[in-house]
Amino acid sequence: MTLQQMMPDELRVFYEAALKEYESCKAKGLKLDMSRGKPAREQTVLSDDLFDIDIREHFISDGVDAGNYGGFDGLPCCKRYFAELLGVQFDEVFAAGNASLSLMYDTISKAYTHGLLRSPEPWCKLDRVKWLCPAPGYDRHFKICQSFGMELITVPMTSDGPNMDLVEELVKDPDVKGIWCVPKFSNPDGIIYSDSVIDRMAALKPAAPDFVIMWDNAYCVHEFEGEFLPFRDILTLCREAGRPDMVFEFASTSKVTYPGGGIACFAASKDNMDYMKKLMSIQTIGFDKLNQLRHVLYLKDKEHTIAHMKKHAALMRPKFELVEEWLSREIAPLGIGHWHKPLGGYFVSFFAMPGCAKRINELAAEAGVVMTGAGATYPYGKDPEDSNLRIAPSYPPLEELGEAMAVFCACVKLAAAEKLLNK
Amino acid sequence: MTLQQMMPDELRVFYEAALKEYESCKAKGLKLDMSRGKPAREQTVLSDDLFDIDIREHFISDGVDAGNYGGFDGLPCCKRYFAELLGVQFDEVFAAGNASLSLMYDTISKAYTHGLLRSPEPWCKLDRVKWLCPAPGYDRHFKICQSFGMELITVPMTSDGPNMDLVEELVKDPDVKGIWCVPKFSNPDGIIYSDSVIDRMAALKPAAPDFVIMWDNAYCVHEFEGEFLPFRDILTLCREAGRPDMVFEFASTSKVTYPGGGIACFAASKDNMDYMKKLMSIQTIGFDKLNQLRHVLYLKDKEHTIAHMKKHAALMRPKFELVEEWLSREIAPLGIGHWHKPLGGYFVSFFAMPGCAKRINELAAEAGVVMTGAGATYPYGKDPEDSNLRIAPSYPPLEELGEAMAVFCACVKLAAAEKLLNK
Repeated sequence: MTLQQMMPDELRVFYEAALKEYESCKAKGLKLDMSRGKPAREQTVLSDDLFDIDIREHFISDGVDAGNYGGFDGLPCCKRYFAELLGVQFDEVFAAGNASLSLMYDTISKAYTHGLLRSPEPWCKLDRVKWLCPAPGYDRHFKICQSFGMELITVPMTSDGPNMDLVEELVKDPDVKGIWCVPKFSNPDGIIYSDSVIDRMAALKPAAPDFVIMWDNAYCVHEFEGEFLPFRDILTLCREAGRPDMVFEFASTSKVTYPGGGIACFAASKDNMDYMKKLMSIQTIGFDKLNQLRHVLYLKDKEHTIAHMKKHAALMRPKFELVEEWLSREIAPLGIGHWHKPLGGYFVSFFAMPGCAKRINELAAEAGVVMTGAGATYPYGKDPEDSNLRIAPSYPPLEELGEAMAVFCACVKLAAAEKLLNK
Repeated sequence: MTLQQMMPDELRVFYEAALKEYESCKAKGLKLDMSRGKPAREQTVLSDDLFDIDIREHFISDGVDAGNYGGFDGLPCCKRYFAELLGVQFDEVFAAGNASLSLMYDTISKAYTHGLLRSPEPWCKLDRVKWLCPAPGYDRHFKICQSFGMELITVPMTSDGPNMDLVEELVKDPDVKGIWCVPKFSNPDGIIYSDSVIDRMAALKPAAPDFVIMWDNAYCVHEFEGEFLPFRDILTLCREAGRPDMVFEFASTSKVTYPGGGIACFAASKDNMDYMKKLMSIQTIGFDKLNQLRHVLYLKDKEHTIAHMKKHAALMRPKFELVEEWLSREIAPLGIGHWHKPLGGYFVSFFAMPGCAKRINELAAEAGVVMTGAGATYPYGKDPEDSNLRIAPSYPPLEELGEAMAVFCACVKLAAAEKLLNK
């Protein structure tokens, strides 16, 4: 029987039981963290062989001295590595530093200060800039736009990707300058954009000449269940659709080797690349080529990287299975929550009964379980339904994750009962 | 006898000899580069022991996992390292990535997009921003300002640092928002700012509430002759003078270990730090802490770093002595050039007879010697006197440097003779 089907008396009994369950969780005095998509130490240990490689023997790489200035757009071997990984061309890659997030920030920052390639003027000169935010989405993406004072427009996610009917309609507004996309294992839903969504995205005819698709391919090789899923190259698709300059793609090895200690890149059309290089040459002489060298010697190529990711998968899978098990057993039968079961990425996106997410967050925190803040997956941190919560199971050890899920499920039940009883 | 003292006939004889000397240089078909302040491979080799350190044993550093997200403002050990090196406080340091240049760019970029702590509004909203450029100076500094459309105002360098009478006058203009300083071994003159200049800089009372001193301490431990010269802490001086938020200091290990593969930091007042951290937390989750760890384990502390720099000095000193030797012997007696003899840094700043720098550059290039472009050391790349040339002796081996200096001196003589003969 679902909670909505219960008679008031049954509901009160349910509430009392849920409260008791919650209080007993709370009494354990836990201190657990399911807030961020952070690999566990047992995952980063997988890459510790990285430091057995003696990079000194390889300092001169394709004629470039990795240990000196020069090679502004990255070591050729590193550009080749990312080109193969993403299925783009060598010249479309800029191999950079440790963080794709800062490359994304910089792209938008430069749109503000200097404009993008096809901008009639820098965005800071405009009265208003609007941006499309498929939601639930990645809080850090939204915060970049918010920080630049953009007007954020929520585009609902479907099981195929962003609602493209709406996107096609919204881009007719010349103030709409871009959209965030995490096309494979979207953050947080773990949704893979369908071919139709990708085709429609590449075929967009936005009114703004400098409209930009920010294609954050953060989880391009991050399957934890099943085999590697080949993925289409958005740069080629945009080029074929006649707008080669409409997209910037981003990727990193933060969740392949070390978060914060890996390498990142962006990929873009030749014209975009020429334009960005001109601006970036003012900002830096170059990124850390020694870490690029270290990573390419270690990860070798796409095939070897996918093999390496299997080791991550073996550690991640049991954690996601545990989350699935708890939610299926404790929540599904009660009809007080639903979620998409991901095959990769770092999150489970849970939809509680509308109006319950903040309360669940609060209850969990009181019981010692820190979650991503309710609302964080929506623009301005405001979930209009107050329903979505992002579960990040990767960091805690399996045993702690079980304890955390017990707390979480108790909170979901208690919050739903409170809501239905108007407590 | 100087060239100016020569009679026309003597000058014509001199010219013919100079032309012959130049032609014979040119006939050698050299291909030499004295254009950038780039350490030689024999210098970067000095740090190759860096890779013998097994950082895996030290991953957990002050309770922070260097191999995972977190520790946004840098590993505590790295903040301590830079704090000691610069003589600032621990909380005044943000330990970052591989490049101080990009930290400087970002500071100015954020002034444009968001404003600095004390800005009434972001600089992109202003009709005009003016900036003080002590010149000769660092071309990349000037290009940052130029890229943001600032009006660059040249402040002549004296043997003590920037002309402070002029600086004090210019900062009365509320449009003047900042100044570049390379206070120790200035780029390119190698001048050390005197105590009086530093005191006056810290005591500035600019009309703009958000005026900022960009204190690029690029050569803070880069003596190549004599002992380490202690240097005063500008943060303390500004605080004592009542304007703690008027300065940002920058430093890196690019010329201590590996250019592009080192670590960098900025230092600022507590209020500036809080303000910048808020903005930067949108831009990045953190910088490469593994490289921070590696560097701190290797460089240890200030004393050990200074000892390490002695090895660089041993390689740099003969090169600067060779430049000095050529200039003293070939140029000084003719009265067609002067320069400041540096004790550290990476450059010799040479002043040719006015109107000759571009011609010298051109002649040198034709003879196979690439130099930093004439004018590069001035705002907009325009030296009003067409006199200054930056000699960067570090990269070529000693033997090649000798050949390059022979060409250079021949070009200086020929250009001067041409000038005086109105050829």
